[in-house]
Amino acid sequence: MINVVKVGGSANIQDEYLLDELAERVLAAEKFVLVHGGSDETNDIARQLGHPPRFVTSVSGFESRYTDRRTMEIFSMVYCGRRNKSIVEGLQQRGVNAVGLSGIDGRIFEGAMKGSLKIIEDGKKKVLRGDYSGKIQKVNTELLLLLLEQGFFPVLTPPAIDADTSAMMNVDGDRAAAELAKALRSDYLLILSTVPGLLRDLAVDHSSPENLIREIDLSDTNNPYESAEGRMKKKIMGAAEAIEGGVGRVILSTANIERPIAHALAGAGTHIFSSPVLEQAV
Amino acid sequence: MINVVKVGGSANIQDEYLLDELAERVLAAEKFVLVHGGSDETNDIARQLGHPPRFVTSVSGFESRYTDRRTMEIFSMVYCGRRNKSIVEGLQQRGVNAVGLSGIDGRIFEGAMKGSLKIIEDGKKKVLRGDYSGKIQKVNTELLLLLLEQGFFPVLTPPAIDADTSAMMNVDGDRAAAELAKALRSDYLLILSTVPGLLRDLAVDHSSPENLIREIDLSDTNNPYESAEGRMKKKIMGAAEAIEGGVGRVILSTANIERPIAHALAGAGTHIFSSPVLEQAV
Repeated sequence: MINVVKVGGSANIQDEYLLDELAERVLAAEKFVLVHGGSDETNDIARQLGHPPRFVTSVSGFESRYTDRRTMEIFSMVYCGRRNKSIVEGLQQRGVNAVGLSGIDGRIFEGAMKGSLKIIEDGKKKVLRGDYSGKIQKVNTELLLLLLEQGFFPVLTPPAIDADTSAMMNVDGDRAAAELAKALRSDYLLILSTVPGLLRDLAVDHSSPENLIREIDLSDTNNPYESAEGRMKKKIMGAAEAIEGGVGRVILSTANIERPIAHALAGAGTHIFSSPVLEQAV
Repeated sequence: MINVVKVGGSANIQDEYLLDELAERVLAAEKFVLVHGGSDETNDIARQLGHPPRFVTSVSGFESRYTDRRTMEIFSMVYCGRRNKSIVEGLQQRGVNAVGLSGIDGRIFEGAMKGSLKIIEDGKKKVLRGDYSGKIQKVNTELLLLLLEQGFFPVLTPPAIDADTSAMMNVDGDRAAAELAKALRSDYLLILSTVPGLLRDLAVDHSSPENLIREIDLSDTNNPYESAEGRMKKKIMGAAEAIEGGVGRVILSTANIERPIAHALAGAGTHIFSSPVLEQAV
């Protein structure tokens, strides 16, 4: 069993807790692939290089980044060269023989580039061309399995590769991790960020326990999924896809706590699953 | 037989010719590891990020870069995230299943960090601390051999990893390629740059054929090695180490020509070797 841990790319994320626990578990022969983000540092560097990020609102209501070629290059530079190697270094310092890879290496994350974005700007629908972002359609796990078999620990990051043109393309890190967990049929996909999980109300205190959605049973038609919007809707949709694809459980929890994996597995965060409806019906 | 090709990191290097030829050869089942540099772009980005490169002169007379931690991070970002992934993308677009790695991934390039540099500044000897550069002492080829066996094409870049602290460290790309060629006992190590090879006089026209040193036979005590200085001395020393370590031939040639590998193998550039003295003596 190979489980997937995704760690976000917020500026205030603390990698040390996760790296400590991963090292402990990997040295005890548990198998994982770590997927990471890097958005905040990418935005910082892009601003410093005079090419600030441009965020747009799609016609379906999601906020996303417009990824022109220059943005794609900065994205690749920071995700693959800065965050990825920093994590690999941290794991090597903890005795784990980590190998950092992106989705273009060995075509691990293969998909389809959109090419253009349909957006809403000033209340009008527009088409924005030259967009290097897309959706993963296939995960080539051979390289990862080969590394895991030989005792290496893969640390994986977007970008992905466009199947037709083999160009790098930006993909959402959570969705990439979900596709990977599906391909590996993982028991769990753990998505770690700087917040305790999915929150009922983003405007109120994060630390309030009542504000945390403790579980979402996708087989329950009254689940709060129906009312979610924006970023949360995107996260729940990703989790639902993973679970429909054979992942046992998706947990959204905080990275900024000692032993964040154990913390999440012990019930913290938001657990998303689908209770076995067929067995109940028998 | 696995040969090593190193391509430099000058701003005016043209990767396309090399990638075209590598793809043609790799698809015909020749085996290579490609090592690359990235110094010019690293210097550009470092300047844009407000942390310009600092070059120092060592007491032994070499010019080198002072690599503080921030410089190391920028170096890693550009080498591993920008140039490495750009080459991987270019090879994938030519049908080669490339995998980009740095010397810290799987501890491929392991060595010893200097920690401090003994330099000459304003005619005085000084010690500059906090230097993240060093020398490779061991090449762990397992990961590369595993990838090559399974049909992947490794694209490798500095930094290396300090054996004691597992911190990233800056190493000279040519020397790294030479250590790799030794570890693989390659028939040849091909070092491609923007110049035709080693030049007698750097101040005169590069394209003048008389200015090119066509060969250096290290077994010949009258070879021009004795009089070389600075950057050229460093290159010849690296080549000499490789050949003493079992590499058949080191060729320094230009990348900026069609089929640069065939061009060099056909006799272009500077060929460095050691003629078989013992056999001649029999």
